Amino acid sequence: MILINIGDELLIGQVVNTNAAYVGRQLSAAGFELTGVVTVGDSGDAIRAALEEAFRHTDTVLMTGGLGPTKDDITKKVVCDLFHRELVMDEAVLKHVTDIFAARGMALTETNREQALVPSGCTVLTNVLGTAPGLWLEEGGKVLIVLPGVPFEMERLLDEEALPRLKERDTRHHAILYKVLQCTNITESGLSDLLEPYEQQLPAGFKLAYLPVPGIIRLRLTAQGDNKERLAALMDEQFAKLKEAAGSYAFTDEDLPMQAVVGKLLVKTGRKVATAESCTGGRIANLLTSVPGSSRYFEGSMVSYSNEVKRDLLNVREDNLKRRGAVSEEVVSDMALNAMGLFDVDYAVATSGIAGPDGGTEQKPVGTVWIAVATPTRLATNLFHFGSRTGRAQIVERAAHAALNMLRIEIEKDLR
Amino acid sequence: MILINIGDELLIGQVVNTNAAYVGRQLSAAGFELTGVVTVGDSGDAIRAALEEAFRHTDTVLMTGGLGPTKDDITKKVVCDLFHRELVMDEAVLKHVTDIFAARGMALTETNREQALVPSGCTVLTNVLGTAPGLWLEEGGKVLIVLPGVPFEMERLLDEEALPRLKERDTRHHAILYKVLQCTNITESGLSDLLEPYEQQLPAGFKLAYLPVPGIIRLRLTAQGDNKERLAALMDEQFAKLKEAAGSYAFTDEDLPMQAVVGKLLVKTGRKVATAESCTGGRIANLLTSVPGSSRYFEGSMVSYSNEVKRDLLNVREDNLKRRGAVSEEVVSDMALNAMGLFDVDYAVATSGIAGPDGGTEQKPVGTVWIAVATPTRLATNLFHFGSRTGRAQIVERAAHAALNMLRIEIEKDLR
Repeated sequence: MILINIGDELLIGQVVNTNAAYVGRQLSAAGFELTGVVTVGDSGDAIRAALEEAFRHTDTVLMTGGLGPTKDDITKKVVCDLFHRELVMDEAVLKHVTDIFAARGMALTETNREQALVPSGCTVLTNVLGTAPGLWLEEGGKVLIVLPGVPFEMERLLDEEALPRLKERDTRHHAILYKVLQCTNITESGLSDLLEPYEQQLPAGFKLAYLPVPGIIRLRLTAQGDNKERLAALMDEQFAKLKEAAGSYAFTDEDLPMQAVVGKLLVKTGRKVATAESCTGGRIANLLTSVPGSSRYFEGSMVSYSNEVKRDLLNVREDNLKRRGAVSEEVVSDMALNAMGLFDVDYAVATSGIAGPDGGTEQKPVGTVWIAVATPTRLATNLFHFGSRTGRAQIVERAAHAALNMLRIEIEKDLR
Repeated sequence: MILINIGDELLIGQVVNTNAAYVGRQLSAAGFELTGVVTVGDSGDAIRAALEEAFRHTDTVLMTGGLGPTKDDITKKVVCDLFHRELVMDEAVLKHVTDIFAARGMALTETNREQALVPSGCTVLTNVLGTAPGLWLEEGGKVLIVLPGVPFEMERLLDEEALPRLKERDTRHHAILYKVLQCTNITESGLSDLLEPYEQQLPAGFKLAYLPVPGIIRLRLTAQGDNKERLAALMDEQFAKLKEAAGSYAFTDEDLPMQAVVGKLLVKTGRKVATAESCTGGRIANLLTSVPGSSRYFEGSMVSYSNEVKRDLLNVREDNLKRRGAVSEEVVSDMALNAMGLFDVDYAVATSGIAGPDGGTEQKPVGTVWIAVATPTRLATNLFHFGSRTGRAQIVERAAHAALNMLRIEIEKDLR
């Protein structure tokens, strides 16, 4: 299967293509293989060329974008041209669009009416979340699925309309399985050397990939084969071997982000957490609360960006701020210990560092970050150097993930 | 120019392709046109096919990924094969890799030594931030640039090594210009109808695109032509017309995210801001602090996820929590007003809502969010319904952007 994403905004980088990742995730979870993703601009010729090229390599193409109400949307015309169809008014879609506007107390414009035009003979995939309908076209064994580019509309149409139809149509019984093992405290190349004998013995159809994310190396073991049950048994066997080979560097075999791993540990222990954030500016709290149900263990955060807030609201000692500076082991320890009391929690995570681009000194260059984790019985602190050329967003991201990893380690110590 | 991104992790959606957006942004800012982005997996055949196809359409191909130290990296072999080169040891790269490992107190492994192998006759682009070198190959008028996939390494190599070489080589003098106008308080189709006469009169080479982001519609006017100066004059003229046509719906002609627009207003007025966040969980603070220099106007945030924290640390009245519930105009007003005093700021933004997937009721379904902005003289409150099927991450994102937009409106009122 090939995915085509349409949009000038993707080519000039005004928008990050999150749709491709979503589609890839959902397709591989359902056992379909995405062999390529192609992004082209809002040009009829480019869309047509991409479609023709894609159908030379595959019989199923999924296309997103180019279905909005505005003038830069030409996808439907190209599809009609290529599949020799006419644009016809779909009364059900027209009613849906009219109802949406009525509910908002607005009259329908001519531009909106045109959203109800669809290629003749296509199946309309009803978009309950928006005005642009999804389209499903079949001809001569080829399938073209066209979905709107707005992420949450695309996601729902993919999950509830396109994927069920694809599964029904699928007769290949080809299976793709993958499992993830997450490792830490080792470099990518160190892990690669460690796992070389393991990789050498992998059976045909198996592949091990290294996916470094901040502070973590995710190992993904992929297996392809014709018999799903046999493949699953072989996968279990090979995955057990992988865990053994990775030893204590592996910390979870669940394909979850660090904040969800931490969340599960907190649910398990019935304990609560809060954060006191300076350089990470709320990013740790934002990551922790991105997990559904996090209100069970996350109490809150004091984002103390200024020294006054650190002193007045987190009771950081004036003496430490003056003599050691805000970016110091002493200040970050004060922050963590006092946040623990303030929020009445079992664990508190604190960060203070220099995210840049300004504010670095020779002693404390941009990228210097102190992190502390306070527990009922211990205080763990670490100094990180994320590199002065790494960039503000990347430093915040790495610091937030390093903090979550420190928190995970401390909770696990208490579980032993 | 065509961009090829390599990586199974991109196809199965484990990683979002932020590299493509970065490359697109930098290329278009430098006047180069990216006509397509292609993502393929870690397979020699797929990489080779993508390279051959790309060179049929363009003479410059930029490729990222597939240069790491581990076994899933086969790019260099494919490049040698396609360009009839041999892999040779580059002594400068070997020294660089050795030095990096020595600095970390680690010995070089065989896998790391192999990173210093490069195709014969290529120009090495030194990667000061990592071990995998960038590559520049020229042959018969065609250019292939290969960069590592790790974002911050790729970004630096693109900006400091690849782009200067591309500019030097460029003899087309073809110009691409674009300007952005950001609008709000109108639907995409409403704006499209309003701007139809304007779009009709646009000269050849000009294109207007609608890019909806949460709460905002970004209009991008793109112009292409041969004479850069003439094009710039025409762009100024057309952009002025666009502003006039959009009228009061336009709020800025700067291509900045909302948090940076707010930041500039705060710098201009010399005022300070803090946030009190429940459902947004620190995301507003995270957005505000993503702007370099935000410590000039951002004091901090109280992320009050639990009712206890709302009551004990933000002095939200118990009576309001009990009788109105945490998601209410009364509670969000208490939060904003008390945060203003607590952080000693001029503006305070507060949110309380139901991000889901659980916690919704008939009266307050998932997606219900109250937002308040306190100013020295006013308190503005708004109730939003972001839709019960929108998804947790999207509700948080929309609420955070709606809050920033309310803050912008209030600061602008004070500027009048």
